[in-house]
Amino acid sequence: MTLLVLLDHAAAAVFAATGALAASRQQLDIVGFLFLAALTAVGGGTIRDLLLDRDVFWIVDPGVIGVTALVALLVFFTAHLLESRLRTLTWLDALALSVAVAAGSGAALQAGQPGVIVALMGVTTGVMGGLMRDVVCNEVPLVLKQGELYASAALAGALATILAARFGLAPLPALIACAALTFTLRAGSIAFGWRLPVYRSRPPRS
Amino acid sequence: MTLLVLLDHAAAAVFAATGALAASRQQLDIVGFLFLAALTAVGGGTIRDLLLDRDVFWIVDPGVIGVTALVALLVFFTAHLLESRLRTLTWLDALALSVAVAAGSGAALQAGQPGVIVALMGVTTGVMGGLMRDVVCNEVPLVLKQGELYASAALAGALATILAARFGLAPLPALIACAALTFTLRAGSIAFGWRLPVYRSRPPRS
Amino acid sequence: MTLLVLLDHAAAAVFAATGALAASRQQLDIVGFLFLAALTAVGGGTIRDLLLDRDVFWIVDPGVIGVTALVALLVFFTAHLLESRLRTLTWLDALALSVAVAAGSGAALQAGQPGVIVALMGVTTGVMGGLMRDVVCNEVPLVLKQGELYASAALAGALATILAARFGLAPLPALIACAALTFTLRAGSIAFGWRLPVYRSRPPRS
Repeated sequence: MTLLVLLDHAAAAVFAATGALAASRQQLDIVGFLFLAALTAVGGGTIRDLLLDRDVFWIVDPGVIGVTALVALLVFFTAHLLESRLRTLTWLDALALSVAVAAGSGAALQAGQPGVIVALMGVTTGVMGGLMRDVVCNEVPLVLKQGELYASAALAGALATILAARFGLAPLPALIACAALTFTLRAGSIAFGWRLPVYRSRPPRS
Repeated sequence: MTLLVLLDHAAAAVFAATGALAASRQQLDIVGFLFLAALTAVGGGTIRDLLLDRDVFWIVDPGVIGVTALVALLVFFTAHLLESRLRTLTWLDALALSVAVAAGSGAALQAGQPGVIVALMGVTTGVMGGLMRDVVCNEVPLVLKQGELYASAALAGALATILAARFGLAPLPALIACAALTFTLRAGSIAFGWRLPVYRSRPPRS
Repeated sequence: MTLLVLLDHAAAAVFAATGALAASRQQLDIVGFLFLAALTAVGGGTIRDLLLDRDVFWIVDPGVIGVTALVALLVFFTAHLLESRLRTLTWLDALALSVAVAAGSGAALQAGQPGVIVALMGVTTGVMGGLMRDVVCNEVPLVLKQGELYASAALAGALATILAARFGLAPLPALIACAALTFTLRAGSIAFGWRLPVYRSRPPRS
């Protein structure tokens, strides 16, 4: 199993947990858990693979779906032990985002894509699974939450992949740098309110 | 016309009626009916074909779109005769779901995919058209309705296809068994409230 | 750069502005502007390219993304000068729709597709980017606004492409006719309330 396949699987497993937690907030049955877990787990990577005209990663290796199903089952039977499912969902989503950005930007880099496509594939792989989860559940997508680093964290991570590759780093440290930067920024935003200035229709009075 | 193509067309025709009924609930004009009918009719099968890297079925055979348009026109001029458009939509959706699950799982089986992909393609083909219809109309997707068999019915049907094939049934009876099981479960859920236990954040007190 | 590529770029640039304006209404940060601008800009053309099994236009030519980013930046720093961002969004969307319908129907025509697919690709390319923007922002999609010409304007424009080609017009005037008709109908709908009769559940009493 190559590094990139491993990252895809890891991101899918963690995203699956966020999908299952979203299902628990909607009080669905076990198949509803499986459905939302799978949609979230493979959504971003699937769009990446379709865009890059590669074979879809979980059709090449259906074991991903098995892992996703196991995670969904586990969450179905243990989520009631959590103190806050929303808080757990948010933190697991941050973790999955970080790994998925590394998987997506790494895959585009390996495919020889130019920097702008590497950046977009990192963001797409990281963001789209959670976006589909939130749209289907009719929640405000995390990527649109006002005054949070989310797409920004993903973009910064993808840019780290590009820079690291340009400076000749090996894939493993490059992708670790990417995931670490993404997670640091996203975690800082959740825990300490780190943010970029947002657009305001009227500038604050001086 | 092969059996699988026929199933795709039949599912598209019935899903088209559900899309047109959704358009009637939004009080759209005739082109709005065509748009929602086509989106619902071909949505699930299109995603399946993109995932399996096949030619998209309605581009290979644009006659599907003609049928979809006829159905949309028919609903535009007759929906006011229905006692309950929502009830009709729900039942037609159950019928379309059943046929589409058979079409999707059959196509994946024919493509030589392993069981887990056959199951997922059945569910995807069955569920995704209606999901897009509901998301675009900003309704709670049927697949997320709490305490209803929907994805579960689709999954059971797809598993029936796999079992039937493993026991050496010919395609026609295998796909009939799939559609019949899906429809029976979904109909039982609509009519008699059949359901799986749903997740609860707190277990009921004993 | 061929005519069709030019149209894709032009539509993307204008759609990007509508995505950025939507981001300003959600009070997002600059990366949120980039994200919504890119999603809207390339959404419709991407779906068309996946359906027709062509290379995705902005992966072939990533310059599109550069233009999209520039437009998003420009809107981020100037949108507060607009009198009404919603009104500007609506009119720019009409312009982008018109150009995108021409780009989409032209691409399908060039690919030798039959009339019904040419029409659908025109509508898909025109409508889907804005639809994704609106669904993600949880707004009623423009294509579902009751009593407005939107999908209808796109469909009429795509039919104009087909007719023009059948009468032997060169691509340039054919696509200009398509865009002009789409824009005229959409603009008439915005400015003067042009509309088709909508479905009513009960006919008006006589």
